[in-house]
Amino acid sequence: MWLFTPQAGIANPANLDRGLQFGDGIFETMLLQNGRVVSIARHLQRLKLSILRLALPEIADFETKLQGAISALQQAAGLQNGIVKLIYTRGAAGRGYLPINAEPCWYVTLNALTAAAPHQGLNIAIAETQVCMQKQMAGLKHLNRLENVLARMECESLGSDEVLMLNAFDQVIEASAHNVFFIIRGQLCTPELNLSGVSGIMRARVLDFCAQQGITCSGRVIQRDELADVTSMLLTNSINGPRQVAVFAGRSLQQDNQFDSIINAYQTGRLDE
Amino acid sequence: MWLFTPQAGIANPANLDRGLQFGDGIFETMLLQNGRVVSIARHLQRLKLSILRLALPEIADFETKLQGAISALQQAAGLQNGIVKLIYTRGAAGRGYLPINAEPCWYVTLNALTAAAPHQGLNIAIAETQVCMQKQMAGLKHLNRLENVLARMECESLGSDEVLMLNAFDQVIEASAHNVFFIIRGQLCTPELNLSGVSGIMRARVLDFCAQQGITCSGRVIQRDELADVTSMLLTNSINGPRQVAVFAGRSLQQDNQFDSIINAYQTGRLDE
Repeated sequence: MWLFTPQAGIANPANLDRGLQFGDGIFETMLLQNGRVVSIARHLQRLKLSILRLALPEIADFETKLQGAISALQQAAGLQNGIVKLIYTRGAAGRGYLPINAEPCWYVTLNALTAAAPHQGLNIAIAETQVCMQKQMAGLKHLNRLENVLARMECESLGSDEVLMLNAFDQVIEASAHNVFFIIRGQLCTPELNLSGVSGIMRARVLDFCAQQGITCSGRVIQRDELADVTSMLLTNSINGPRQVAVFAGRSLQQDNQFDSIINAYQTGRLDE
Repeated sequence: MWLFTPQAGIANPANLDRGLQFGDGIFETMLLQNGRVVSIARHLQRLKLSILRLALPEIADFETKLQGAISALQQAAGLQNGIVKLIYTRGAAGRGYLPINAEPCWYVTLNALTAAAPHQGLNIAIAETQVCMQKQMAGLKHLNRLENVLARMECESLGSDEVLMLNAFDQVIEASAHNVFFIIRGQLCTPELNLSGVSGIMRARVLDFCAQQGITCSGRVIQRDELADVTSMLLTNSINGPRQVAVFAGRSLQQDNQFDSIINAYQTGRLDE
């Protein structure tokens, strides 16, 4: 294979990373807090599940290697807090969808935390951009994220803080970079992610907390027409934690006590990692 | 941003290509034949459409730059025939779905043609792997191709030459790396690609030929239950041209005269480029 890039001219590489060629890989975005990665066990568990479901090649002793990389990055950057992102791909291979002799590749980045995301007055719109529907890939944090990019750009043009995304069945799934919880007709619920969406670590932590506290939260199919009955809404992701929404689709929402207790538990370190 | 890779250790890059991070880009796979790229005008037209629909940044005078890169690659590789692949991404940027100050990147590879794909006895299975459903991205040759990778791996494990893919609505869409045409109850048809799939260059050339020859071919929704009535089937892509299928889902198909005339026109250079 011969490769031309405007930056580097002509080279004769063995291959190109399938992460770039096809989005053939997965990623994890993790919070570094006081020098340690929050919920690292859950992130590694999701990684293992994704590796299995996408039949990605395994890397021997990967957990140790990852921890070593994160420690080295922390030292180089001089950071105790930040955002750690792992990209894990099927690796370098020749042309064509079929992986032949691919060796897995991984990349870890560490970024400083930017200004804290707002925790009050969050304004959420409904995106025109659909979330993909593909049952084998649903729930996984794979690298095919063009829909999220398009939704985030739509969000920017709308001037909202986030956008809610639905799939082709008109099922409510998630926001562009968050999972969502709702109070609908007095019931706490969160979208089922069997057909679309990412099964978030913070979502799992919130569900575990609800189960521990005896708070009923149903993971179920939520159709578009139910959105008219949403009275409260919670966004979750691993970087920002749980946050309540103030305005949804132009309508003011109520601040919910159950959501308050989840947020309080998160802020006081009482959500299981 | 700090980056760790097991290959290169720690670096402090400005950014990581969004093609790798999110599949945030597009590609074109083109046939180099006797020193020239077949159907380059159509490939560039699709590229422009994709740039527009995904709001990718444009590169000034890109056509000239691409032609220069292809010429340089041909010379370096000493090839008159091969496969040219262009990857065009939203470019390098920091963390997060929203592109901020992204500068587009592009990569061109040239590979020698491998052994010619078989033109007889093609055996096609039906994949379990679904093709994604997302209307804004349908038809485009974007970099979110994990479903095609999974389908191609399934094909390999089935021992077939290709696999037909359907979406979550049980609509027949395409094969893992080909578009498809069928004869169903005596009628020539090809799946509509409004919700899923890639709108292939060879598909467009075949449709143009049909229109010129007065052959009726309807682009329409084809449901799974219609597959029982398929009597003939044609696969198309830019590298392999049009090819008839011998066995589909374990059932022997007929060789169709209209498909023969399309293949003959392709082989004798009478399909409009």
